[in-house]
Amino acid sequence: MKKKKNLCTHYISKLEKPREPITITLPDGTTKEGTSYETSPMTIAAGIAKSLAERTVIARVDGELWDLERPLESSCKLELLDFEHDEGKKVFWHSSAHMLGEACERHYGCHLCIGPPLEDGFYYEMGLKDRVVSQTDYASLEKLVGQINKEKQPFERLVLSKENLLEMFKHNPYKQHIINDKIPDGTSTTVYRCGPLIDLCRGPHVPHTGRVKAFTVTKNSSSYFLGDAKNDSLQRLYGISFPDKKQMTEYKKFIEEAAKRDHRKIGKEQELFFFHELSPGSAFMLPHGARIYNALMELIKKEYGARGFTEVITPNMFNLKLWNQSGHAAKYKENMFCLEVDKEEFALKPMNCPGHCLMFGHKDHSYRELPIRYADFGVLHRNEFSGALSGLTRVRRFQQDDAHIFCRQDQIEQEMANCFDFLNHVYGVFGFEFHLKLSTRPENFIGEISVWDNAEKKLEDSLNEFAKKKGVAWELNAGDGAFYGPKIDIVISDALRRKHQCATIQLDFQLPERFKLNYRTENKGEEEAYARPVIIHRAILGSVERMMGILIEHFGGKFPFWLSPRQVSVIPVAAPFLEYAQKVTAQLVAKGIYADTDTTDNTLNKKIRNSELSQYNFIFVVGAEEESTQSVNVRNRDDVGTKAKGQTIPLQTVIDGMVALKESKSLENKF
Amino acid sequence: MKKKKNLCTHYISKLEKPREPITITLPDGTTKEGTSYETSPMTIAAGIAKSLAERTVIARVDGELWDLERPLESSCKLELLDFEHDEGKKVFWHSSAHMLGEACERHYGCHLCIGPPLEDGFYYEMGLKDRVVSQTDYASLEKLVGQINKEKQPFERLVLSKENLLEMFKHNPYKQHIINDKIPDGTSTTVYRCGPLIDLCRGPHVPHTGRVKAFTVTKNSSSYFLGDAKNDSLQRLYGISFPDKKQMTEYKKFIEEAAKRDHRKIGKEQELFFFHELSPGSAFMLPHGARIYNALMELIKKEYGARGFTEVITPNMFNLKLWNQSGHAAKYKENMFCLEVDKEEFALKPMNCPGHCLMFGHKDHSYRELPIRYADFGVLHRNEFSGALSGLTRVRRFQQDDAHIFCRQDQIEQEMANCFDFLNHVYGVFGFEFHLKLSTRPENFIGEISVWDNAEKKLEDSLNEFAKKKGVAWELNAGDGAFYGPKIDIVISDALRRKHQCATIQLDFQLPERFKLNYRTENKGEEEAYARPVIIHRAILGSVERMMGILIEHFGGKFPFWLSPRQVSVIPVAAPFLEYAQKVTAQLVAKGIYADTDTTDNTLNKKIRNSELSQYNFIFVVGAEEESTQSVNVRNRDDVGTKAKGQTIPLQTVIDGMVALKESKSLENKF
Repeated sequence: MKKKKNLCTHYISKLEKPREPITITLPDGTTKEGTSYETSPMTIAAGIAKSLAERTVIARVDGELWDLERPLESSCKLELLDFEHDEGKKVFWHSSAHMLGEACERHYGCHLCIGPPLEDGFYYEMGLKDRVVSQTDYASLEKLVGQINKEKQPFERLVLSKENLLEMFKHNPYKQHIINDKIPDGTSTTVYRCGPLIDLCRGPHVPHTGRVKAFTVTKNSSSYFLGDAKNDSLQRLYGISFPDKKQMTEYKKFIEEAAKRDHRKIGKEQELFFFHELSPGSAFMLPHGARIYNALMELIKKEYGARGFTEVITPNMFNLKLWNQSGHAAKYKENMFCLEVDKEEFALKPMNCPGHCLMFGHKDHSYRELPIRYADFGVLHRNEFSGALSGLTRVRRFQQDDAHIFCRQDQIEQEMANCFDFLNHVYGVFGFEFHLKLSTRPENFIGEISVWDNAEKKLEDSLNEFAKKKGVAWELNAGDGAFYGPKIDIVISDALRRKHQCATIQLDFQLPERFKLNYRTENKGEEEAYARPVIIHRAILGSVERMMGILIEHFGGKFPFWLSPRQVSVIPVAAPFLEYAQKVTAQLVAKGIYADTDTTDNTLNKKIRNSELSQYNFIFVVGAEEESTQSVNVRNRDDVGTKAKGQTIPLQTVIDGMVALKESKSLENKF
Repeated sequence: MKKKKNLCTHYISKLEKPREPITITLPDGTTKEGTSYETSPMTIAAGIAKSLAERTVIARVDGELWDLERPLESSCKLELLDFEHDEGKKVFWHSSAHMLGEACERHYGCHLCIGPPLEDGFYYEMGLKDRVVSQTDYASLEKLVGQINKEKQPFERLVLSKENLLEMFKHNPYKQHIINDKIPDGTSTTVYRCGPLIDLCRGPHVPHTGRVKAFTVTKNSSSYFLGDAKNDSLQRLYGISFPDKKQMTEYKKFIEEAAKRDHRKIGKEQELFFFHELSPGSAFMLPHGARIYNALMELIKKEYGARGFTEVITPNMFNLKLWNQSGHAAKYKENMFCLEVDKEEFALKPMNCPGHCLMFGHKDHSYRELPIRYADFGVLHRNEFSGALSGLTRVRRFQQDDAHIFCRQDQIEQEMANCFDFLNHVYGVFGFEFHLKLSTRPENFIGEISVWDNAEKKLEDSLNEFAKKKGVAWELNAGDGAFYGPKIDIVISDALRRKHQCATIQLDFQLPERFKLNYRTENKGEEEAYARPVIIHRAILGSVERMMGILIEHFGGKFPFWLSPRQVSVIPVAAPFLEYAQKVTAQLVAKGIYADTDTTDNTLNKKIRNSELSQYNFIFVVGAEEESTQSVNVRNRDDVGTKAKGQTIPLQTVIDGMVALKESKSLENKF
């Protein structure tokens, strides 16, 4: 490795720099001594422990990502990030993409295009002459990557002028296009070399290919260069990799379990919803899906009264003047569905907030009335790119458990505390763990910085308060706020430990300004007789469609009783008991329980099996004994496959039990 | 009168016809003898009773409207229609419009345009040179009409050629335009003369102006000739008239009461809803309005389980291909809001039916599964003309308690009976009387006549069955069906005896055909293994927005407890009891009761008065005694203005009473 370092023009230039003593501060505050332009993060890691050096993927020096072997330049703060860290993962998968690219070049003799890391792995995109990628290629590619891994090829960084780059990539039209498009004339940029592959890349990377010990190709697809159908058709190969083989085994198990729980699969099996080409991105909720959907809305509605929220209903389309006033037309118009109404431009609402501002503004309000909390389940439409639509998780038509709280400045902390309590309650019902993220001022913000700072401070205080009380953590997500204000995102972990961001609490000082919203203060005189309210945007479920998708996977289709669209299956052992079975069903239905009678001619075993497959929470079998004693024989879904036998229970006890279980919203399937 | 009859060319021509004995059959089957071209309906009426002749407005001869003085031509069926009959009213108001026109010509020297009867009175539209109508003109016009009434001017019918008409109306550009537009060259049409006014008119009319004994101008507005803003601006005067003065007095009382109950007025006073220019025709339901709206939906939802309906949720926009397939694009496109999605034409749904057809069609169904009853509260949009929008009764955005029943032919009667039972239940809750109308094949029908005949027969049988059981009447509304099938409209009478058509039950053999919907029959062989289901479209509330408007007026803003958005006002007699008042409120709210605490500094009397004005069903006053005994002093809204004193009742009893009253959906405000 050392032998090759002189090839790296970047590092070579640094060698001219003076050697001086520097101090490196680690995250825990301890310090290490080193020499500028000599000591690298790797030196420090190896000095602490060999295992640390082997585990570390990338360094962060004063906040900037830094190749492990790149010498430090002055005293600095140093973080050593491993694969478990989000940034570490990203670098690891980016390096893995280069390895896949190298293998593809060898295997196909293709023109590589781009190879970025993803949330969950990476891909490489390439132009193939007169052929397409097939699944049978995967094994050969994986074998090649295995060799590359064994060769421990170092990732070497080189700085080249645009001229040299164009010469270097003269046979690759895609890279040429990218160089011409992205790199100004007369400037330089970096390439990274590993083995025979030299790729246009800003880096950084892992030290060498030996780090990627487990690698697999996961799928392939076709795409267009720059995503434009007028350009060349390209082939994409997706992969995933890990620093050790055990992680790959776990990952494959996880993928298998996730596939079983895929909400699109369960949605089809359980007849919950479907999609149709005549309305892309809008789910059709079938009867059993609508039960889940409505149960989710009811869960929230039930809380509204005591928590001081009042439902409102607002229009679905508004004149573009409204979206100009709110700022959505300028920032968000490409995501809105526009239409012509009375010869003026209108748009379907993508959000409820501007409508709620009109509502607040339509009459005079006194400080006594605040906070006013408008809740709205209105239908929203967002023009997502058709290629991005996916099951219930990315749709064009959805409803939210949306609310806007119009309050005074002195009420923000209390309202935030109430919001946290509300989401703590709801996520408790689902059995979700969650943590909180504060997203601050983004680049495309509107309004004044001082107002943003004030808002961010209020949220931080509320978060500290809640975090202290609940013993949970929160983290800063700098620069990721909405354009109109800072926000708190709540990240839940599902049963497979996957993370989802659903709930959001956003503070907004901008819309009240844009809509000139006022309330009368306590001051009856002319001075400060009016003040601007603050708006808190908040949703707990977020998109009901998306939350339903997440919950289907979280529960793997085995819904808790209160959320289940098929709660009780009543099965007569034979035809003469059909009437009693139907009586039992009717009594359950009258109490709001989703019960069905199996009226088929199937055998008893077949009927029971069908009800098990349909995921009924309970199966009530009824025959002569049950009819004569006005009882039912109860089988619990959770006992399927065990030796547990059904238990005969008086009908009234069972009905009361079902009603109480539903009411309790328990996660356990017992009464 | 007789003297002038020779002016009427129409009757003159009949005088040449032979006199022969004819038989006139009255509706009760009795017959009268007469002579052709001599005996008129008036002769028959006068022969029966002078009072009948005076009361009769117009005749119907073999189904055709017939001037009372016009001689009968052959043996016929004769009906004598008075003002109470819809057709009688229409003729009476049409004649009254001529009288208003005559008065306007005298008063303004204007160019008359058109003067049709309306549902509720009539108007005359005219061109005025350099002036507009003002309310101060009303008295002079009414005085002139009074004189015209006293003169008993006969309405005389004359037939004139187009040539003569153009000459007669040469100074009136509007009539000239109408003559040129409507009357083919070389043909004739009728004019009617009364006093100095000769007006282009098809008639028929009352015998003379002496019949219109009570007349009033109600309002004026401006309009454009032919409704086109590019044409001349015209002035419109609206009026109403009656055969006697007592009816006018009653009418004015009714108008006063209706104005007090106007849902737009109450909607504002009670802060239920509002409209905004940025979304014309879409109501904003304020918190208290949304409570009413949701209570109406809940009323229906609560019935769905036991009645076998299942809620579904379907997209709000569809590719125009869907509307082409359903036939809506051809018949209804001008009422649809269209927009571009992925470079194709889409439309917001004006109805749920085609979406439900996609849902039914997306999987295989067995005959055992039918009927399948999809219920959908989806948001619908219809592009009503902006000038026609009016409060909640004519909107562009609305939701319906819509359902589509997919059933077998042999299930139609049972499903119809179920629908009747459902609406009987719901209208009972509101205290509405109702009657039924069967609307049959319209001119713009689609499909085959034999299929229509079959459908109409099924509906007729069901109506007869229900009518017999309930002792209610139904009537035929020939030619008024939807383009896709016959329908039953249910006409309710509100507290002011006004009629509204809300519920509808429509049989549809067309959509199943257009969507090629099938179910598997009992026949397992090749032959007739599949059959087409029938669709029953049905709604009970109809548009929830419109029903809410009707109910606000029906109850005059004094809602029954279950529907009321302000159920209990809790008033502390003084500040020290505020805490107990809030405790009481919180306990009520926890039970789902809409209760508020009066936290103002007002005097006790003022607080009580405010709660009365806000139409709280009950007022709970709490002071030292109530707090110490854990009770409340209850005042009933219905006792306001009476000597009845509040009654002190234990808190728990009152809470139980409120919950039970809400549950009962009683129309009486007592527990």
